[in-house]
Amino acid sequence: MAEISQPAPALHTWKLTLAYDGTGFSGWQVQPGERTVQGELQAALGRVTGETPLPQGSGRTDAGVHALAQVASFALQAAIPPANLQRALNRTLPASIRILEAKIEQSCFHARHSAVAKTYEYRVLYERTGRGEICSPFLAPYVYAYPWPLNLNAMQQAAQAFIGEHDFLSFAATDPDLASRGPSPTPEPALKREPLKAPAIRTIFCSSWEEKKTEAGALLIYRVRGNGFLHHMVRNLVGTMLDVGRGHLPAQAIPGILAARARAAAGPTAPARGLFLHSVEYE
Amino acid sequence: MAEISQPAPALHTWKLTLAYDGTGFSGWQVQPGERTVQGELQAALGRVTGETPLPQGSGRTDAGVHALAQVASFALQAAIPPANLQRALNRTLPASIRILEAKIEQSCFHARHSAVAKTYEYRVLYERTGRGEICSPFLAPYVYAYPWPLNLNAMQQAAQAFIGEHDFLSFAATDPDLASRGPSPTPEPALKREPLKAPAIRTIFCSSWEEKKTEAGALLIYRVRGNGFLHHMVRNLVGTMLDVGRGHLPAQAIPGILAARARAAAGPTAPARGLFLHSVEYE
Repeated sequence: MAEISQPAPALHTWKLTLAYDGTGFSGWQVQPGERTVQGELQAALGRVTGETPLPQGSGRTDAGVHALAQVASFALQAAIPPANLQRALNRTLPASIRILEAKIEQSCFHARHSAVAKTYEYRVLYERTGRGEICSPFLAPYVYAYPWPLNLNAMQQAAQAFIGEHDFLSFAATDPDLASRGPSPTPEPALKREPLKAPAIRTIFCSSWEEKKTEAGALLIYRVRGNGFLHHMVRNLVGTMLDVGRGHLPAQAIPGILAARARAAAGPTAPARGLFLHSVEYE
Repeated sequence: MAEISQPAPALHTWKLTLAYDGTGFSGWQVQPGERTVQGELQAALGRVTGETPLPQGSGRTDAGVHALAQVASFALQAAIPPANLQRALNRTLPASIRILEAKIEQSCFHARHSAVAKTYEYRVLYERTGRGEICSPFLAPYVYAYPWPLNLNAMQQAAQAFIGEHDFLSFAATDPDLASRGPSPTPEPALKREPLKAPAIRTIFCSSWEEKKTEAGALLIYRVRGNGFLHHMVRNLVGTMLDVGRGHLPAQAIPGILAARARAAAGPTAPARGLFLHSVEYE
């Protein structure tokens, strides 16, 4: 679709870095009748340049998932100084989407295919005293307010068990209609440098929890950096680690859950609102 | 309307203190076909108690205006322990509205009529280097990102000129259709203790700016406490002080603007999104 509406020859490949509050969007990907980040960006490009290429993201984000620095690429015929394109897009986009940087790249650049690593962050508001604490309405769209006491040491141990190359099928979203086609309706391929061995094999470089005191209470922040992530993978890792933190599962169970290669072996999917795409790395 | 749908005799007068993110609401007041805070609260009371009194707020907040501690009162027949009502309401309300406290009050208590003072806060994100800075999408609904350099000393001087009893007609919203009825379509009366002298006379107890460094940049926070506020009054005070900060108006002009008793004499209305109802005081 993008290729058809795009004028040829496209002269410049663009790389945009953008932040968005995912609260008001039905995720990244264009869907008919839905307000999506990709759709808003495409429409803004149309208003600014008269061209409407479909921007390719480094990956999709689900409804309610935020981005601190998503990357998108597309081609434009129009010759525009990058600072002007950035300013014009920020003027016409909703305030919930901001272009942090606009850059002309080599023609072979592609936001998804060229990426070598991605980092996600997941924010849990930790309610020490058990149920009934009140999560500020100003924080609620950006955290998972977890209502039970947590053992952070056990969660840290579980986080470390994910580091390295593993088959993460147990942590991939399952969709019964698409089961024959693979582990997920929107599998995100492992990034360029890592040749595929099995569809769910990914390498995790860093995986750890950090506690941060804020005015609103203690935030537990999980940061994970890897060469690729399956659909819902970070939210399933977090849901499983919260089960560990709560004492429902020992941290030592993680290797067995990975080996099971079955979604049912792992914990629940943590809510979208706590998840932030932190950054995408390129060579 | 509230009186008709309310079962008689009502046994208990309730006082709720609530916080809300005004972003997704068409203001406080119930309006047909609109999502409002008062409407959500009434519906939640109905789900929890089977009774649907219309909660009376300490005052209306416009679309996009937030509350850190709004107060609402209503009467209920049902006998419910306050902590249970609070918990049940928080379970059924959207996360953008939180009940901070629920209390049974004396039967004569009324959130608006019993109030003796209110405090508002207005948050300006100060962009020191002029146009083109990027306001984070996570901050945008809660600040006015002001794109010009500001002289904080001049603004502080202007803020002090509002302290005391003044006729604030120059700072009241004008509505041509309702001009004959008073200064505003939704005038908020001066609170109980202060007998009305003229419809726009209010007493301001405190009025000052504070600079606060945050991760996102320097926030300028205006705090104003008074015995009552006209419609749009705080936003008009702020818009005028920003004109002073930018150098379009000397701080010494404020007494003349008050004396003019004409909306055109004052500065523009600052955007709703920076405004927070901070607190309401009772005897």
